[in-house]
Amino acid sequence: MHAYRTHTCGELTKSDVGATVKLSGWLHRRREHAGALFIDLRDHYGLTQVVVYPNASFYEDAKRATAESVLTVTGEVIARDAEAVNPELPTGEIELPAETLVIESAAAKLPLPVFAEPDYPEDIRLKHRYLDLRRETLHKNMVLRSQIIASLRRRMIEQGFTEFQTPILTASSPEGARDFLVPSRLHPGEFYALPQAPQQFKQLLMVSGFDRYFQIAPCFRDEDARADRSPGEFYQLDIEMSFVEQEDVFQAIEPVMRGVFEEFADWQGKGRSMPEGPFPRIPYAEAMAKYGSDKPDLRNPIELADVTDFFADDSKTGFSIFAKIIAGGGKVIAIPAPKAAEQKSRKFFDDLDKWAKKEMQAPGLGYARLKEADVGGVDSQDPVLKNFDADHLRAFLDHLGLGAGDGIFFSAGNHDAAYKLAGAARNKVGEELELIEQGIFKFCWIVDFPMYEWDEDNKKIDFSHNPFSMPQGGMEALEQADTVEKQLDLKAFQYDIVCNGVELSSGAIRNHRPDIMLKAFELAGYGADVVEAEFGGMLNAFRFGAPPHGGIAPGVDRIVMLLAEVDNLRDVTLFPMNQQARDLMMQAPSAVDDKQLRELNIRLAPQAKKD
Amino acid sequence: MHAYRTHTCGELTKSDVGATVKLSGWLHRRREHAGALFIDLRDHYGLTQVVVYPNASFYEDAKRATAESVLTVTGEVIARDAEAVNPELPTGEIELPAETLVIESAAAKLPLPVFAEPDYPEDIRLKHRYLDLRRETLHKNMVLRSQIIASLRRRMIEQGFTEFQTPILTASSPEGARDFLVPSRLHPGEFYALPQAPQQFKQLLMVSGFDRYFQIAPCFRDEDARADRSPGEFYQLDIEMSFVEQEDVFQAIEPVMRGVFEEFADWQGKGRSMPEGPFPRIPYAEAMAKYGSDKPDLRNPIELADVTDFFADDSKTGFSIFAKIIAGGGKVIAIPAPKAAEQKSRKFFDDLDKWAKKEMQAPGLGYARLKEADVGGVDSQDPVLKNFDADHLRAFLDHLGLGAGDGIFFSAGNHDAAYKLAGAARNKVGEELELIEQGIFKFCWIVDFPMYEWDEDNKKIDFSHNPFSMPQGGMEALEQADTVEKQLDLKAFQYDIVCNGVELSSGAIRNHRPDIMLKAFELAGYGADVVEAEFGGMLNAFRFGAPPHGGIAPGVDRIVMLLAEVDNLRDVTLFPMNQQARDLMMQAPSAVDDKQLRELNIRLAPQAKKD
Repeated sequence: MHAYRTHTCGELTKSDVGATVKLSGWLHRRREHAGALFIDLRDHYGLTQVVVYPNASFYEDAKRATAESVLTVTGEVIARDAEAVNPELPTGEIELPAETLVIESAAAKLPLPVFAEPDYPEDIRLKHRYLDLRRETLHKNMVLRSQIIASLRRRMIEQGFTEFQTPILTASSPEGARDFLVPSRLHPGEFYALPQAPQQFKQLLMVSGFDRYFQIAPCFRDEDARADRSPGEFYQLDIEMSFVEQEDVFQAIEPVMRGVFEEFADWQGKGRSMPEGPFPRIPYAEAMAKYGSDKPDLRNPIELADVTDFFADDSKTGFSIFAKIIAGGGKVIAIPAPKAAEQKSRKFFDDLDKWAKKEMQAPGLGYARLKEADVGGVDSQDPVLKNFDADHLRAFLDHLGLGAGDGIFFSAGNHDAAYKLAGAARNKVGEELELIEQGIFKFCWIVDFPMYEWDEDNKKIDFSHNPFSMPQGGMEALEQADTVEKQLDLKAFQYDIVCNGVELSSGAIRNHRPDIMLKAFELAGYGADVVEAEFGGMLNAFRFGAPPHGGIAPGVDRIVMLLAEVDNLRDVTLFPMNQQARDLMMQAPSAVDDKQLRELNIRLAPQAKKD
Repeated sequence: MHAYRTHTCGELTKSDVGATVKLSGWLHRRREHAGALFIDLRDHYGLTQVVVYPNASFYEDAKRATAESVLTVTGEVIARDAEAVNPELPTGEIELPAETLVIESAAAKLPLPVFAEPDYPEDIRLKHRYLDLRRETLHKNMVLRSQIIASLRRRMIEQGFTEFQTPILTASSPEGARDFLVPSRLHPGEFYALPQAPQQFKQLLMVSGFDRYFQIAPCFRDEDARADRSPGEFYQLDIEMSFVEQEDVFQAIEPVMRGVFEEFADWQGKGRSMPEGPFPRIPYAEAMAKYGSDKPDLRNPIELADVTDFFADDSKTGFSIFAKIIAGGGKVIAIPAPKAAEQKSRKFFDDLDKWAKKEMQAPGLGYARLKEADVGGVDSQDPVLKNFDADHLRAFLDHLGLGAGDGIFFSAGNHDAAYKLAGAARNKVGEELELIEQGIFKFCWIVDFPMYEWDEDNKKIDFSHNPFSMPQGGMEALEQADTVEKQLDLKAFQYDIVCNGVELSSGAIRNHRPDIMLKAFELAGYGADVVEAEFGGMLNAFRFGAPPHGGIAPGVDRIVMLLAEVDNLRDVTLFPMNQQARDLMMQAPSAVDDKQLRELNIRLAPQAKKD
């Protein structure tokens, strides 16, 4: 018989009754009943009930064994009595009376209980992560993560992609975030950088003639932590394809994302679904107008409406505040709140106004509650609509498709501020009115991002997102855009993939033509010398025959968080650092000895901050 | 029609004749014949012959287009004339007369030719790696690498393993090599280290209750480069399993290794094979005795023989040199060289003696050539055997199973030096006599490594390999080993996997018991305080219920090198650094600006070397 086990703790069923077996696992829980000890023995695969009777020579050992000790038990499988069957447990029909019991590893007093998973302070959980990971919830999340990544890989390979590992010790990249640096021992005063993303490498792979690349790629940014961003490292499903247009990228990636989300939709019996059909393609301008966001949560049925025109003339509205804002070039955006006037008290509306002021630093969020009017029609006693002409009010409500019992919120201000608040209010109102459809994954592509945006500080245009995206219309479009207005109208072949309001990734068809790239930078006010100095490596590579290419890089951590339904990255990361970028278990970072620093030709300069 | 292609360049066959198609790819080669241009258009998938006739409007463009420019071509597929069919090429039965031709990207003068792959200086190849990677040989190697890794992953998952990503920004580890360090921005004076291997993490995963872990794991060691070791990063198939004994690890990994090597045995029509049956398990002592190495190349039929006893008494041999060495405690090891006396001149033997002196820094390699004796039997006129008693010679040759026509080399000296030279000579003689079986992958496990070795410098025993391996016999064996001799006889559950003389990995059943670990360190002269200070993290984790566990970590790069039949790691690495740890393409490492250094609380100290 094997030294440790003939079966796992998740394996034995009624068909094994009568078999002599050996199990190993952790002492999950022990109860005493009529003198016998009932031990839930746990391993990676499940739980099995082991029974130790008082006549066993090891009875006292078993009674004293501490929780989370590792035991090996042999015995003959028996069926449980009918009333003792546990239908929740795959092994719930059997139990194992122990004939031998060995304590392989005795557990000391636990700093953190594993059974029942009570709340425990984060720092203790992180310090003893190996105990925290034994807990059922976290254990299952980690397995889910692994299965999702394996599924992504399998599906990418099925789509004809090849996985390549790109270097981790590389050069500082112009991605915009802060690099982690690695001092070079052989080259004093020089540093490697960890890649913020393998962006340049994947484009160089296309230039190297590899056609469809992917990688579950570790990426590194030395930025402060957030709930959905680890300090340090994260993973993306990095993808690049040659000889493609935007729609080819969508056609390649959609089946992968749909496949993975459908595969795990019912994880842990959660019974979630996805709508049929291709992911909607929503132009950026439309997304901003309808949802006030370029990462709209399509589970929320609320759509914004630009009602600026209705408020421009205050002789019809009797509401001069909005009219003044409009006169100053501002906008008024309505956020419909269906049935809110019927279902919610005035406090609901006032609280949202307070939220806008406090959380959004906005001047406020106007509102109107619509009621059945005394003499037919609809009426509102709230200031914004109170003094509307009757006809004007009717036209206004027809425009919004709202009526008695509904509510409306108003976000007013300059274009960007008004939409920002309106988009946030749309989310908030949708949540509070419980309008967000549950148990569904709604994807969309946001397309046609503007190539440039207005840089108010420097009074010039600049790239809005990625300077390396191909402008729609190519060189001709750039050359014809001879005014700032026309330049701001230029679109890029750049796109985002969004699920339930979470941006999983940006992507783009790249600009593979040095001539178009130099022109695109010229419009943004960068001379050829700057471009050559900053991005000369890529530009040179493109001069030796570059294929048209494009790609995307969905965040693996975000995909796992969506499927696991967790808000904190630490719940889907094996050995995370804390918010202060410290690994409490491994005690990293830590001091190093002088010899190491000398070898690296650096010295500490904690006082350098004051320089 | 798609903007760039309806088919790839490796796809069109006779069944496509008559179809209107579009292809995109690189201008691989262009010939002119009877006025028409014959262009080999190349992409990732293959080559297709495109024909441009002189009447085409784009004829002059096509004629002037530079090698490696990217073209898009449309036309109607036609069958080649019978005499023009190229059976070497999957598309060799057809060609594509171009109806349209667009130059997507014109290539400048190439620093490195792609067609025909002439030899080119390494630094130019590395600087323009994206061109080098277009070359057929390297391109195929990279695809092979990717396929091998995908196959390893698939097979590990089939064996019930789960892949987990362990942290890359972590703590300095006691692996023995030099760490790459990453200064922490948030914690002045502290550093992360890149993992030399995820050794501690994989053991902690077992302590966390995950049962069978693997990872294609990036590892980092700041060591100087060798042909088979990249400066910087390398990959290993990192594996760990719980509740296992040594043989369980072998049973889990053998099918994976066999599967991958059989899958790719015929790569590029190389028609290689593997012997049937389980990989031989060879105890370390036997490997040293038979092969003079713990990484024996089993394709070499030569086995060493300890002939010390035959030379101890020089009254029987008339050869006092060996007798003196033996009297001083030394050994004489014979390396049989079958048929060498028959097939090779005296120069062959002398050259090996010179090689031993020059390359191996040995006093020399004795030899004897066996000839048919004048009066029956076998004779040798070379000094070592010349004066042997006739009976003694007969017994000696019977012992070795050698006869007339064979040769023998002799390595003499203290035990370690004699075996070291004998092992190297075995390889050399096997190669030169062309005894190494070709086209076969011969694996073996080396087992029963000694736990301790004699540290001559400090006149004490120390760990021979990994202090964290479980000693065979556990605590009892350690306690009973009360003399240095007995301690040196202790074996560990430690093993190597070797293929064709290449060590792919060490592995071990780990010591999961803090009490046994402290005892093992005590024997080697380390107090509990030292162990707690150095390895306290692991030791503590083991105190909360640790399963028996073990693993291994075959080097991915070495597996790929064996299957690709290359000697240089750069031939199977996408974007390698040069021998000086510099990425010539990305220009890493490089100087960084002062602001970055200030943020990291370090400053340059190139003069620190002189401190």
